[in-house]
Amino acid sequence: MPHLLFEKHKPLLAQALVAIRKRGYWSPYAESIKAYGDDAIEEGRSAFEAYRDAQFYLDQPGVIERGGSEISPYGLSLNISYPKCGPDALIVAAKAAMMAWIKAGPDTRAGVCVEMLSRLNAHSLEMAHAVMHTTGQSLSTAFLAAGPQAQERGLEAVAYAYREMKQVPETALWEKPRERHPPLRLEKIYTIVPRGVALVLGCSTFPTWNAYPGFFASLVTGNPVLIKPHPSVILPLALTVAVARQTLKEAGFDPNLVALLVDDSDAPVAREVATHPDIRVVDYTGGPVFGLWLEENARQAKVFTEKAGVNCVIVDSTDDYPGLLKNLVLSLSLYSGQMCTTPQAIFVSRDGVKTKSETIPLDQFERDLSRALNTFLDDTPRALEILGAIQSPTTLARIEASRELGEVICESRALRHPQFPEARIQTPLLLKVDVADIPAYGEERFGPIGFVVEAETTLESLSVAERIMHEQGALNLLVHSTSGPIWQLAEEISLRVGVALSFNLTDGVYINQAASFSDYHATGANPAANACLIDSAFVASRFFVVQSRHPA
Amino acid sequence: MPHLLFEKHKPLLAQALVAIRKRGYWSPYAESIKAYGDDAIEEGRSAFEAYRDAQFYLDQPGVIERGGSEISPYGLSLNISYPKCGPDALIVAAKAAMMAWIKAGPDTRAGVCVEMLSRLNAHSLEMAHAVMHTTGQSLSTAFLAAGPQAQERGLEAVAYAYREMKQVPETALWEKPRERHPPLRLEKIYTIVPRGVALVLGCSTFPTWNAYPGFFASLVTGNPVLIKPHPSVILPLALTVAVARQTLKEAGFDPNLVALLVDDSDAPVAREVATHPDIRVVDYTGGPVFGLWLEENARQAKVFTEKAGVNCVIVDSTDDYPGLLKNLVLSLSLYSGQMCTTPQAIFVSRDGVKTKSETIPLDQFERDLSRALNTFLDDTPRALEILGAIQSPTTLARIEASRELGEVICESRALRHPQFPEARIQTPLLLKVDVADIPAYGEERFGPIGFVVEAETTLESLSVAERIMHEQGALNLLVHSTSGPIWQLAEEISLRVGVALSFNLTDGVYINQAASFSDYHATGANPAANACLIDSAFVASRFFVVQSRHPA
Repeated sequence: MPHLLFEKHKPLLAQALVAIRKRGYWSPYAESIKAYGDDAIEEGRSAFEAYRDAQFYLDQPGVIERGGSEISPYGLSLNISYPKCGPDALIVAAKAAMMAWIKAGPDTRAGVCVEMLSRLNAHSLEMAHAVMHTTGQSLSTAFLAAGPQAQERGLEAVAYAYREMKQVPETALWEKPRERHPPLRLEKIYTIVPRGVALVLGCSTFPTWNAYPGFFASLVTGNPVLIKPHPSVILPLALTVAVARQTLKEAGFDPNLVALLVDDSDAPVAREVATHPDIRVVDYTGGPVFGLWLEENARQAKVFTEKAGVNCVIVDSTDDYPGLLKNLVLSLSLYSGQMCTTPQAIFVSRDGVKTKSETIPLDQFERDLSRALNTFLDDTPRALEILGAIQSPTTLARIEASRELGEVICESRALRHPQFPEARIQTPLLLKVDVADIPAYGEERFGPIGFVVEAETTLESLSVAERIMHEQGALNLLVHSTSGPIWQLAEEISLRVGVALSFNLTDGVYINQAASFSDYHATGANPAANACLIDSAFVASRFFVVQSRHPA
Repeated sequence: MPHLLFEKHKPLLAQALVAIRKRGYWSPYAESIKAYGDDAIEEGRSAFEAYRDAQFYLDQPGVIERGGSEISPYGLSLNISYPKCGPDALIVAAKAAMMAWIKAGPDTRAGVCVEMLSRLNAHSLEMAHAVMHTTGQSLSTAFLAAGPQAQERGLEAVAYAYREMKQVPETALWEKPRERHPPLRLEKIYTIVPRGVALVLGCSTFPTWNAYPGFFASLVTGNPVLIKPHPSVILPLALTVAVARQTLKEAGFDPNLVALLVDDSDAPVAREVATHPDIRVVDYTGGPVFGLWLEENARQAKVFTEKAGVNCVIVDSTDDYPGLLKNLVLSLSLYSGQMCTTPQAIFVSRDGVKTKSETIPLDQFERDLSRALNTFLDDTPRALEILGAIQSPTTLARIEASRELGEVICESRALRHPQFPEARIQTPLLLKVDVADIPAYGEERFGPIGFVVEAETTLESLSVAERIMHEQGALNLLVHSTSGPIWQLAEEISLRVGVALSFNLTDGVYINQAASFSDYHATGANPAANACLIDSAFVASRFFVVQSRHPA
């Protein structure tokens, strides 16, 4: 059976291996809902509804009680109860399951992992509803980000790890010639051995997109994985664990190689489990404070963190001013700025924005941007589709508190969802500040909060942005410029800070988006993240090579 | 010029890339002294003598004073004075040199690094004398280990890092089809960006073999490197730095990409420099106490350590009893046990050692092993050749102190070197202890100190050895057995502990030896080392990938 799964998925894996080498566009899982059937949305909704007011079934060891109290940002109470298991019981069971998984080898493990992804793909619409009603994303955003795009990140992780593992030969014959003696001959066997039990700490905004790289990278390299979802966003990862366990079981492996660890926000277990001596890998996405805590404290483990930073935009000059505004407006609005990739600080100089025909004065740019934002969001159905809802009440409070950080140039408004009257929906707040006011705009303000930062010159914009990204971290830098020297300066800054750079996005690509198999999400080089999703370093230290040799 | 170096060394690099994938025998640098010319030894000696009683020339910035007080374990005072430079000046210069090195790209950097290795190869005999008169190795051991074999480890590191870097395409065209619109098209550029300034902390026994992997892995991935030799073993790494700087200069790069940092044992700088905020990678080989300190404290850097452990031998049964004894005797004697790979605890059960025709009782095995050791070392020229001299007086004192740890079954004797009457030469001390006496044999006793550990059964030997290796770490486990079930048990232990396993070495391969391009030296999986020399994880986290994208 395991071998069959490898044979079944070999062609896809081969394509994935080509894709990570070419890094062009490749999207193996359909990104159009239509591809999932005419009734896919309704079927997904029914499947989701069936979980509500019910017990989520997971046959895990060490169940102590049941828990979970998710409330949809759209106002629904999910009332799903999950088994809560003792971490020690899950770790013991995971360790017991490990040796057979090691011995299965990279091919079999990769086959099983791709099978999981393929089954998760079939659940994409069910997942979309689950993610919508936990993270607040609109259904279409949730479908894409938590369905095919998350699965693609998972497949990318499998491909990276598989490539690294397969670069180690399984056996070798070492034959050293000698003078006047027959050669020395040794047969050698090389085995991929995992680091140990891995822990994935899920986040509240992109529970699958952010968890799948670490989850699949650890699992395919032989590490059992405990997944601890954010207590307010459990269902998407519970679905994932259920599919993974079922796949393992059918493939003849112990399902305890993957387990769900549920906790409550008033009794969190992440610190205790992350520092457990048997936890050897930790993957985390979320706020910088806890990310740093993990890096400092989970010393027994390899810790991979994706935290957050201050993403900067430099507006210098453009060939397409309307396109620039439109692109920026969508970037600021997408999922209400609840993305680690949302731009926060938009630097513009007092010289204004040079376009092909004229120079737009700074204050006019500010008016234009605000107007474009308002116009875009005045279309309520579109606004609801793009904004989604605010995941956490803390973010709502942050919008309110941020009003004092500068001069409001575009007010944040609450919108009413016709179907979900209690949904927390809020348009972005846009402020203007002076470049000197770094305390206001120079630290992460998670949510729909943007700043136009007024600098003297584009050079000042670049140099201040560099300092902030170096100190606070950033996942991306967007530069709008038609000037060669500015491009060169921006490129040098991007190399020095270790931040992904985009120029002149005015069409349908947004700075927030990172395409699987093509964009490296984060670099690991600045404080926003200590790892990249996904590069070789992200996978290579999850396993060791252990050799055995004997005379041939 | 840089491009020419890449072209020049492309064939060798291509062979190296094949070798790391096949992991059979491959030795690109000649391992026979004859290949270096008829007068190679004498020429090497003259070159070495020219350094004595003189100032070592290095054109480095920030020279504060001159220092260095190496004394040969063979009794010569070297009286070489090196420039001592302020770490900050070297770091500033290194950082200034970095951008051009980044922009040169992987091909050029690899060409320059392989050129360095090729020039170091030409200095192999000079290096052999330098290593002999700092580490105490005999000339032939020093030649092999510090010359071709160290260069091979360096080339292996270049090949691993080069492969990882080249798996990242330099550019990509991302083209996403859209309905009713032309495709979205982005051009993407991916740049390999180093972590930052790297520090290599040299050791006192294998200064080049242990330093080259980290040095070349860091340098080829774009990191400038400061090399801080052990204060008693400076010359080998000073020679290395001189060759590296000259190569860089001739290739058109700033020589400050590589610098020598000299300190004194009474004013060590390693702690301060290793925790300097601008040091982003640390490679260390040496004692476990300082290795652990680095792992705990150099938090701003990626730290790679090769420390030490308790290497175990399990003697159960054999088809070749004389071969077993002979092999073990040489393993215990080689460079007087001053190798991190020297076996320390030889477990034998009270059931004795089963051979083809009989069972050798335990006490007879102990007598046989002692006799074989004495016989082997009674041939003084051979003994001097194999043992070399004791690098540090501390090791001499440790031999003395270890006598009380068990019952001496083979005394350690001082030998007199006809040419160097003051040389510290000492044969191995062999003790017998009970398996329960873990405090005696269960921690590392660096130097020519071995234990025969008496256990009840081979199963007990294996289980106690597993516990010790798990807790103290080990670089290797040698098992002598003709029993299938024992092989299986040993294999499972090796996977659980993450230790390299060898079976039945009775001919010309010794447990101490790790062959470049074939054997993985250490695994990173147990406390003996947190990294492997050399695997993907050893190179992959030395660099980041930074991308830039713009509409096509």
